[in-house]
This record gives sequence, C-alpha cells and structure tokens, in this order.
Amino acid sequence: MTEWIDGKRVAQRIRDQVAHDVATSFTADTSPGLATVLVGDDPASAVYVGSKRRMVRHLGMRDVHRAVPSDAAQAEVAAVLDELAEDPAVSGILLQLPLPSGLDAAALIDRIPVAKDVDGLSTVSAGLLARDRFGLRPCTPAGVLELLDAEGVKIEGATAVVVGRSDLVGRPMGQMLVNRDATVTVTHKATPDLPAVTREADVLVVAAGVHGLIGPEHVKPGATVIDVGIHRTPAGLAGDVRAAELGGLARRLTPVPGGVGPMTIAMLMANTVKAARWARRLA
Amino acid sequence: MTEWIDGKRVAQRIRDQVAHDVATSFTADTSPGLATVLVGDDPASAVYVGSKRRMVRHLGMRDVHRAVPSDAAQAEVAAVLDELAEDPAVSGILLQLPLPSGLDAAALIDRIPVAKDVDGLSTVSAGLLARDRFGLRPCTPAGVLELLDAEGVKIEGATAVVVGRSDLVGRPMGQMLVNRDATVTVTHKATPDLPAVTREADVLVVAAGVHGLIGPEHVKPGATVIDVGIHRTPAGLAGDVRAAELGGLARRLTPVPGGVGPMTIAMLMANTVKAARWARRLA
Repeated sequence: MTEWIDGKRVAQRIRDQVAHDVATSFTADTSPGLATVLVGDDPASAVYVGSKRRMVRHLGMRDVHRAVPSDAAQAEVAAVLDELAEDPAVSGILLQLPLPSGLDAAALIDRIPVAKDVDGLSTVSAGLLARDRFGLRPCTPAGVLELLDAEGVKIEGATAVVVGRSDLVGRPMGQMLVNRDATVTVTHKATPDLPAVTREADVLVVAAGVHGLIGPEHVKPGATVIDVGIHRTPAGLAGDVRAAELGGLARRLTPVPGGVGPMTIAMLMANTVKAARWARRLA
Repeated sequence: MTEWIDGKRVAQRIRDQVAHDVATSFTADTSPGLATVLVGDDPASAVYVGSKRRMVRHLGMRDVHRAVPSDAAQAEVAAVLDELAEDPAVSGILLQLPLPSGLDAAALIDRIPVAKDVDGLSTVSAGLLARDRFGLRPCTPAGVLELLDAEGVKIEGATAVVVGRSDLVGRPMGQMLVNRDATVTVTHKATPDLPAVTREADVLVVAAGVHGLIGPEHVKPGATVIDVGIHRTPAGLAGDVRAAELGGLARRLTPVPGGVGPMTIAMLMANTVKAARWARRLA
C-alpha cells in the first residue's frame, strides 16, 4: 500500500509550533520580524510575497515590507537591504526572486547578514551547511527533512538519492542528508543511467524540474518518494513524478500539490523564529 | 594491468607551471606572496611549514612568515591574521593546523579574506564551492582532480564514490565531482554496506582515515582508485587502500606515498598564484 504524505498537515503543525514559540518566547517588543523585499511588479512574485506577509501576521510576528521599483539600480536595492540588516526589529530578510534582469541576485543575497538569511541562500549560509555548522537552511530541503521526520522515515544509514543539483534544492538537500548520516548520491542531467541509480534509493528526493521524469522504472519497491517539482499542466498541477503509476510500488509518496509545497513557507516562518533567537544570543 | 598514478610527476608539472606563471605574469614587485602562520612549537607542524616556505621561495614567490607563541590568546592570533589580510604583498594566508588547544580554529580561519584563503577552508570558500562559483578550493581534493585529469580519467558522466565526509577532503571532493558532472555518492562510517556502494564506482576516492579499509571486495574491475589516507605502520607509510591486493583489478591506483601527498603542497602553490591574480582583478 502506498501512503500519501500529507504536507498540509505537517506544515500546519510547524506553523502551530511557530505561533506557540512566538507567543511564549517573545513579547510584543521582541517579536520576530520578517522583512520581505519585492523588486518590480511581477504578478506571481507579488502573490507569493502577499502570502508570506499574511502568514507572518497570522502567526503573531512583525511584517516589514519594502517595495522597490522595477528600474531600481543595484545600489538602490543594496541600500534597502543594508537598512534592514541594521534594523533590530527585523529578524529575517527575504529578497523575493527572481529579480528584474540587470540586477545581480547573488551579490544582493550576499549582503544579507548570515543571521538574518532566512532563505538560507547566501554564500555564507551555504558554507555553514557544507560544514554541518549551525545556520539557517534553505526552506524547501529543510521542509523535505521535516516531512521525512514526521513520517518516521529512517534517514540514518539509509540510501538516499537526490535528482537535481540546484542551489535552491538539490545541492543543499544532498548535504543535509549527508549530515543526517544517509549515504547520499546526487544525480543530474549528466547521469547516464538514472533509473539504475534511483532504484537503489530508500529515500528518493526528486527536484529535477522536469515534468513526469520519474516513473515506476525509477523506484525501488518500498521507497519513500518526495516530489519537489511543480508544473502547470492542462490536467492541473503536477510534479516531476508520475505519481499515478507508483501506486503499490512506493511505500510513501508526496502529492503535488499538497506535499512539499506547503512546507516551504512553513519553514520560512520557522527560520524567522530561529533567526530571532540567534540574534538574541548574538546581542 | 593496474597502472600506478605518479603523483610526484604530476605535482612537478604543477610546480613547473607555477614557476612559469610567476616568472611571466608577475614582476619582483608584484610576485605572489604566501604568508604562513605557525602557532606554537609542534615539531610536525614546523616541518610542514618549513617545506611550504622552501617551495614558495624555490618557485620565485614571496615567503612571509609569522611565528606566534603557543600561549597566544585568540585575539593575538586574530591580530596577526588581520595584519596579513591588509598587507598587499600577501596574496595568500595559510594558518597551519592543528592549533594549540583553547584556540577556535574555525573562527580564526574565517578571518582570512576569501580572496586570500589559499587553503580553501573558510566558510565562505566552502559556500562558493557548494554553489559552484569561482573561489579557492581545498588543496587535497583539488589535487585529486588534477591527478584524474592528468591520467585522462573521464569524470563527466562517471559514477564516483567518495569514502569519508571530512571538511578537508570528503565533503569538498564530493561537491567538486558533482560540479564536474559525475554522479556522486558520499559514504561514511554510517554507511551500512560499504562494498556494495563502492563496487559501483568508476572513480573511487578514499579519504576515510582508516588504514587498510578498502580491499578488492570494494573495487569494481577497471576502476580508478585514489587513496588519500596516509598512516605510519611498522612496514612503512600506507594508505586507506590495501593496494597490494588490487593488482589486476583496479585500472589505475595512487601509491602511498607518492600519490596524492605531493599534490597537496603543489596545489597550495597554484592557489597562491590564483589568489594573486584574483587580487589583481579586485584592485
């Protein structure tokens, strides 16, 4: 029997924990604050930022927002980030991606102080992860780990395979699984025989960004399959995994939507609390 | 037939290239400079630093050295590093490890500016590697890649397995091989069935630090095996690999000594030239 992993339920539990932590560990004056920075007027980005801001307020945290015109120069965006970096009311800074063309996203992200880098995407945060040191982790792979833990999936000693090596998901996911004592293989488009590798996986995390890439020929019976992909298709939202074909083969599987998706924003909230606690220790 | 990979020869070629680059791309006034910082009086560390300094001078680069007493406080070592960080005659800074107990090595390494971090061990350098961005790479795994390239071993599309996940070798090695389009598995002491994993490897890099860990039961016929281990035994220096048992099984194998060992110091020299060029671009 294949079980669906209910990302909505796990995300709800994370958010409940955040609300509890905010209510019990902070006062109105010290409440964690998330600053969202939106450059330009991309409609999808505006929707994402709006969701994050509503969630921040809903959980009792401080919502700080900066809207920057789409024709802003690199130095103008940098100045906004620097001001937020100095602001003690701001625990975490999120620079919504993608940025309008002409801006150097990597350089801007690296202006965010490591202790406020709630997206975990700066070079220093990547280095802390690579060294298995304390820091803020990218939200999507952190959410995948929470899902695995919530389902009681054994990671230590497991054979884990990650499909994809993006900065956002694949690379950090591989390192997080190594840090948790899994034997980890990172695969990508240059992997010649993908099914042969993925069929070894007890835990298979698919973040290739290719609709329907993974089918039954890729999956070991009894595996846990986590689908990070999300694609708009004529038949509705779908992932990198052909989920309908895995019934009875995989032991557990995340749906799309309702699997990894809800975890990313929940982990952003959890990272904001973690950042606020980090700032308190640094103060 | 198993071929020995001659690390001495490849290291010599790297050093020749460094000497050539120093002679042709720099003047006496702009010559790359390596600053070695030795804290305390550990005899082995003194020997290593002495070798590096002689090599620096031999290749026509500037040798800068700071000896710090073994009872120096964290702030005193930090002040030495900060002074070298500011010095335009210093292209690279090497803090010899291990440090006397009581000093926080990670914090001191992170004071070295990323463009002078010729050991590639700072958090920022680790982050640049994790993101596949330009930077200075740790010398031992960089040396392993040079050996593979010198032997014409195909890395793109290959199945590579790394045994060990240290900050110095295993973790960066895995990332460097992913960046080169290998399908990479990182294993470690929590891997339950090591031979089953390593037997898949076209390229097997062993950096476990366990004498004689790897034997014929771990090796796929025709594999290239790189032994990073080095151990003093009654019978002389030996590696993590039981090399004598791999004759006719592995296609290529590094000896211990004379394999990876000579590459580490050669790559330190190459990194010093790379750092000097980086500084020139930043200036």
